[in-house]
Amino acid sequence: MSDQVKYVLDEAQIPKAWYNLNADFPKPMPAVLHPGTHQPIGPSDLEPLFPMDLILQEVSTERYIEIPEPVRDVFRMWRPAPLIRARRLEKLLDTPAKIYFKYEGVSPAGSHKPNTAVPQAWYNKEAGIKRLSTETGAGQWGSSLAFAGSLFGIDVTVFQVRVSYDQKPYRRALMETYGARCVASPSNETEAGRAVLAKDPNSPGSLGMAISEAVEIAAKDPAVKYALGSVLNHVMLHQTIIGEETIRQFELANDDPDVVIGCAGGGSNFAGLCFPYLGLQLRGGRSRRFIAVEPAACPTLTRGKYAYDFGDTAHLTPLMKMHTLGSTFMPPGFHAGGLRYHGMGAMVSHAYELGLIEARSYQQRGCFEAGVQFARCEGIVPAPESTHAVRCAIDEALRCKAEGKAETIVFNLSGHGHFDMQAYINFFEGKLVDLDYDEAALAQSLAGLPSIAA
Amino acid sequence: MSDQVKYVLDEAQIPKAWYNLNADFPKPMPAVLHPGTHQPIGPSDLEPLFPMDLILQEVSTERYIEIPEPVRDVFRMWRPAPLIRARRLEKLLDTPAKIYFKYEGVSPAGSHKPNTAVPQAWYNKEAGIKRLSTETGAGQWGSSLAFAGSLFGIDVTVFQVRVSYDQKPYRRALMETYGARCVASPSNETEAGRAVLAKDPNSPGSLGMAISEAVEIAAKDPAVKYALGSVLNHVMLHQTIIGEETIRQFELANDDPDVVIGCAGGGSNFAGLCFPYLGLQLRGGRSRRFIAVEPAACPTLTRGKYAYDFGDTAHLTPLMKMHTLGSTFMPPGFHAGGLRYHGMGAMVSHAYELGLIEARSYQQRGCFEAGVQFARCEGIVPAPESTHAVRCAIDEALRCKAEGKAETIVFNLSGHGHFDMQAYINFFEGKLVDLDYDEAALAQSLAGLPSIAA
Repeated sequence: MSDQVKYVLDEAQIPKAWYNLNADFPKPMPAVLHPGTHQPIGPSDLEPLFPMDLILQEVSTERYIEIPEPVRDVFRMWRPAPLIRARRLEKLLDTPAKIYFKYEGVSPAGSHKPNTAVPQAWYNKEAGIKRLSTETGAGQWGSSLAFAGSLFGIDVTVFQVRVSYDQKPYRRALMETYGARCVASPSNETEAGRAVLAKDPNSPGSLGMAISEAVEIAAKDPAVKYALGSVLNHVMLHQTIIGEETIRQFELANDDPDVVIGCAGGGSNFAGLCFPYLGLQLRGGRSRRFIAVEPAACPTLTRGKYAYDFGDTAHLTPLMKMHTLGSTFMPPGFHAGGLRYHGMGAMVSHAYELGLIEARSYQQRGCFEAGVQFARCEGIVPAPESTHAVRCAIDEALRCKAEGKAETIVFNLSGHGHFDMQAYINFFEGKLVDLDYDEAALAQSLAGLPSIAA
Repeated sequence: MSDQVKYVLDEAQIPKAWYNLNADFPKPMPAVLHPGTHQPIGPSDLEPLFPMDLILQEVSTERYIEIPEPVRDVFRMWRPAPLIRARRLEKLLDTPAKIYFKYEGVSPAGSHKPNTAVPQAWYNKEAGIKRLSTETGAGQWGSSLAFAGSLFGIDVTVFQVRVSYDQKPYRRALMETYGARCVASPSNETEAGRAVLAKDPNSPGSLGMAISEAVEIAAKDPAVKYALGSVLNHVMLHQTIIGEETIRQFELANDDPDVVIGCAGGGSNFAGLCFPYLGLQLRGGRSRRFIAVEPAACPTLTRGKYAYDFGDTAHLTPLMKMHTLGSTFMPPGFHAGGLRYHGMGAMVSHAYELGLIEARSYQQRGCFEAGVQFARCEGIVPAPESTHAVRCAIDEALRCKAEGKAETIVFNLSGHGHFDMQAYINFFEGKLVDLDYDEAALAQSLAGLPSIAA
């Protein structure tokens, strides 16, 4: 066993292909349906929103899809991302377990999101697109697409959820530094936004609303395409570069993970780390535990229904079968904006339904406690979203201690918390409390799911 | 010539020794004087403030000083820091020059400061010290010592300049996440602070005042030592790990810098990159240009006097011969808090006086313009301090273009700007203006320098 701290690959070792779990699922994924007709959609139905290369990735069942050289060339700015052994945390916990984390916060925007922002921007550029429209909640995705747009000369408009726009001016400044235009959502720039504002001029916004606005802009203007930072199959695909690198790094470490952990909002950072390992297992390799960690205040996998639902509040998107709390569900205002989405990506949902992965939910105070503990051992202050994965990794290491097992645990530290320090301030001041969603509102939201024969 | 983007060394290649320019200066440095007697001080005079190992480094003329293994072990968390080729910036500028930057923002605290915070905390721990006192302006140093303290079980108290304490709550939250206690300076916790507050209860504070407070705490309590993040010889020594790594990385790149650039407040990040190269030159190697870049609003090297002066406003520190604007000089409130110090480190001053290095000053608007240009090419948002180095590197690359010279330029990107986004917001809103210091006040400050025979 090596006693290195960091496992760093040379830039020549950046993976040359993404891994597509759709090649290995034991049962194919349910079809995506048209929002009006409820009939399966084809690639052409998505053409107003995405360039054809991305649509073909969305429906592909090829096992490996080549990463274009210009995209790999951009990745060389920060990839391969390090795999780091959390030795000080292990020592503090006095656990026989070995804890590793894949650190995606080394990207310019500070999270795993550029892994898909860069190829999405590049494929759009190749298709002649000069303008992209998107939404952002916590701001990680918006700043990543802004960064990618700046590299390829694409104008990016970001509908930033109003509450995040107001509370996170630094995140907005980061997007503007990269040259993007930020609009607080709901806005007066779209019908969807105006409809919400007419009812509630002080609406704090939601990710579902912001998606409606960004999609509407793209749907109405052929010169504008839409980009989504999670949920969709091609996003999961792009994020598998995380797990592909991690597999090589564990070979260097002469070790192998027994437990693989990621936080899950739309599911892309979890999928990115897990799917390559899950693929090995489905092709006859050893079995591992895969744990998706979600917030107790927005427990999509653990409390949602596996059903067809819309991706947005205005019901402009196609219908996908996924674990959902219903598109009208409004989670309470907890501090991990990236995990406040009502649905889970269809691929992660499918894997969960097939019993291939586990899910677990945590309240936020315990997550921030874990985040502070981690920062004091390993130096890196995790993003609020990522603290969910840290909490789970610590709990698994403590389980190993109780059971006397020397398991190897790896989690995805999907981003740093430099733009989320207000959450830490609230935590230290005792203002950060655990939050429960409203059971009655959830029941009502689920009752409103579109009625579609399974 | 390699066409790699990043030159990344394995953690086994972290340098094993720091380089001490005091071994190679063609003329020895002027003595440090006692603030009361004006006689040269000896190691024992510094014992109330520092552990003996650091004092011996302060006065050492050994060429190489071994980096203790436990310190190298911590460095493995993020070092070696990458040397990155700014190919997109080169292309944008259409210059024949090659531009590289050494990126120190990969450290947990986001700058080069942990390079000295970690050994300082470790030497103190080895000496049995459990409490450290320090000051911080921009917050880079305070968060770095807080981080180092968390690793070695040392309680850290940080006197944070009032204006920074109020304007940068996230930087403070970072220090508290690492477990440090932050006190707004001037404070009621020291005589020096109370004296200032008695005259001006709303004093915005200054680095010189905060140093007085931190030094006073340590001088009065034998259980507390003091730590300084720049200026002193042992700090310059610790930062040479930057240049030692860079030399190895340029060998990998099969290239060699003609121009070496760093921003300079107290001088430590500049010294860290430059001194190992300067040492090679002084021992018969090729000559290079070394450019220290300072703010026009606090132009210590370019407009200061080379004279004995105090390091703090309350005149508690020993007297060092340095380029100084006078310890009572109060620079205008520009956005690079780390460059607002009245003096320059004695080693950098000595090198400048000997004609071994150049100095240049810039106004802040041009620096932020360069910072935004850099971010849009290379993804990383530079700290306001570091934008000075970026500005200079761009200007040198444009000079190369005008002269048709394919020189190799390297600059130290000493930190990222994630905790300084308010400065970028002000820049985008047009509120960030160029600032000049008050000539009359400078003359008065210089007239008040202690009268000591050179």
